[in-house]
Amino acid sequence: MKSPAHRDVPIDALRDAGNARRNDVIAVEEPLEIRLMREGLPEADENGGTGRSISVTMRTPGHDAELAVGFLYGEGLLRETHDVVAAGYCGPTGNILRVTVRADLPLDLARLARNFYSTSSCGVCGKASIEAVAASAGDRRIDAGPGTAKTIVRESVLHSLPDSLRASQAGFAETGGMHAVGVFDVDGQLIASREDVGRHNAMDKLVGAAFMAGELPWRERVVLLSGRASFELLQKAMMAGCPIVAAIGAPSTLAVELAESAGITLVAFLRPGGCNVYTHPWRIRVAQKES
Amino acid sequence: MKSPAHRDVPIDALRDAGNARRNDVIAVEEPLEIRLMREGLPEADENGGTGRSISVTMRTPGHDAELAVGFLYGEGLLRETHDVVAAGYCGPTGNILRVTVRADLPLDLARLARNFYSTSSCGVCGKASIEAVAASAGDRRIDAGPGTAKTIVRESVLHSLPDSLRASQAGFAETGGMHAVGVFDVDGQLIASREDVGRHNAMDKLVGAAFMAGELPWRERVVLLSGRASFELLQKAMMAGCPIVAAIGAPSTLAVELAESAGITLVAFLRPGGCNVYTHPWRIRVAQKES
Repeated sequence: MKSPAHRDVPIDALRDAGNARRNDVIAVEEPLEIRLMREGLPEADENGGTGRSISVTMRTPGHDAELAVGFLYGEGLLRETHDVVAAGYCGPTGNILRVTVRADLPLDLARLARNFYSTSSCGVCGKASIEAVAASAGDRRIDAGPGTAKTIVRESVLHSLPDSLRASQAGFAETGGMHAVGVFDVDGQLIASREDVGRHNAMDKLVGAAFMAGELPWRERVVLLSGRASFELLQKAMMAGCPIVAAIGAPSTLAVELAESAGITLVAFLRPGGCNVYTHPWRIRVAQKES
Repeated sequence: MKSPAHRDVPIDALRDAGNARRNDVIAVEEPLEIRLMREGLPEADENGGTGRSISVTMRTPGHDAELAVGFLYGEGLLRETHDVVAAGYCGPTGNILRVTVRADLPLDLARLARNFYSTSSCGVCGKASIEAVAASAGDRRIDAGPGTAKTIVRESVLHSLPDSLRASQAGFAETGGMHAVGVFDVDGQLIASREDVGRHNAMDKLVGAAFMAGELPWRERVVLLSGRASFELLQKAMMAGCPIVAAIGAPSTLAVELAESAGITLVAFLRPGGCNVYTHPWRIRVAQKES
């Protein structure tokens, strides 16, 4: 029994013009437990036959298999589409999602048990030590090999993305409380978008969908974040190979540092009238301007 | 060597009116590892003499001892000010904060090691299972005992809080990228506020400061959140005993459910012209209105 993404609740609407008792539509937030199991293991394994609990995240229900797979991909556990044999709800609540991986996929489950705890729009997502956080950054560079096609986007295309993402956001319009992440081609065409109360869940859902469709790494793609650009979102973009990340909100120092070292072009404060480019500006074809 | 809360970075500012290379001030985001140690343990304990690593959170440096103590308080580990013997940086980085608790404080360190991982503006904060999340909710009620003084706030006071919080936010004005949380008395007087890239860190800092000053539980107090009201922030408010939580942004379903069951008055979309009251509206003295 899956929950909807938003729900009506009764409120007291206090307004200068007068008060009313009415309904308000709010974003659903529920825990999702992500479990991992190896193909071919007997149901009654050491974990009671339901897989190993990897993570609990507070998320908006919907696209949960994508969320789980995207999370595991972002943590470097999955490489190829066929690594995942199955991903589906486990039990009747709709709040436990089990990902079954192929029997011979190399996995360090002891490390997993120690390190993986994901949380709504979090910043570390399971790194149990500062060393682990540092180690995960900077080990990939985007578009970096000699002879690799370089992704270029026009400044005018960047400015078309926020409206396009907003138009795709059913949930935000209803609730005012959802983060969105969209992936676009370099001509500004929206390929997919996802919403969630937690920004990192929206990103995991988008990455998981692309992974399952065999579309990763994201060459020649632009990811747009409806809010701020944190370290964690850049980390997920890096794992997905995305060369350009744009945010409507502000970036953090660590997001800028990771973008710089990973070779990602980071744009933030993308708003009517302008934007700021923090790293690798060469990927943006700047408009001719009267000045 | 403590990091500052914000930092200048060079950017390409692309504007309709013309482009420029200049500096931008952005919010610092760095990992903070929270360690816990018992008083009187020899330095060379099982964890190498530096305490047990409980959690890593991506935070804005500053008020780190408050953050660590507030986090531990929010998780139900600390009750009284004298439970904490010391809280200070460990090592030279300024990114490891060790809290030393009194020798006879009851602690289940094995459970801690399993369950506690905090992350920037996260929603679970260390609950390794759905059951644990559910168990932590609803076990306290605010203002509920017979004869307890009931906290009441005027609607006009609520509407004065956002400007007051904003005026206290040095970081947001500079960076555009910080969450803030403030605690007020029922007359709208700001008692304290904290900022962070992660909203849950800002709340932990505020709670930690109040805890160390012996000001908890927060009777007759209103907490204002600069952003959305998630389950986790309500959970922290509940642990701190706060009867009224107001948010400028949207609430989630689980935040509303927790506020309802814990007896907290939850106000959201607190903006010029109105606000929505989701739970326990009796604590708000509504203004007389022409309608």
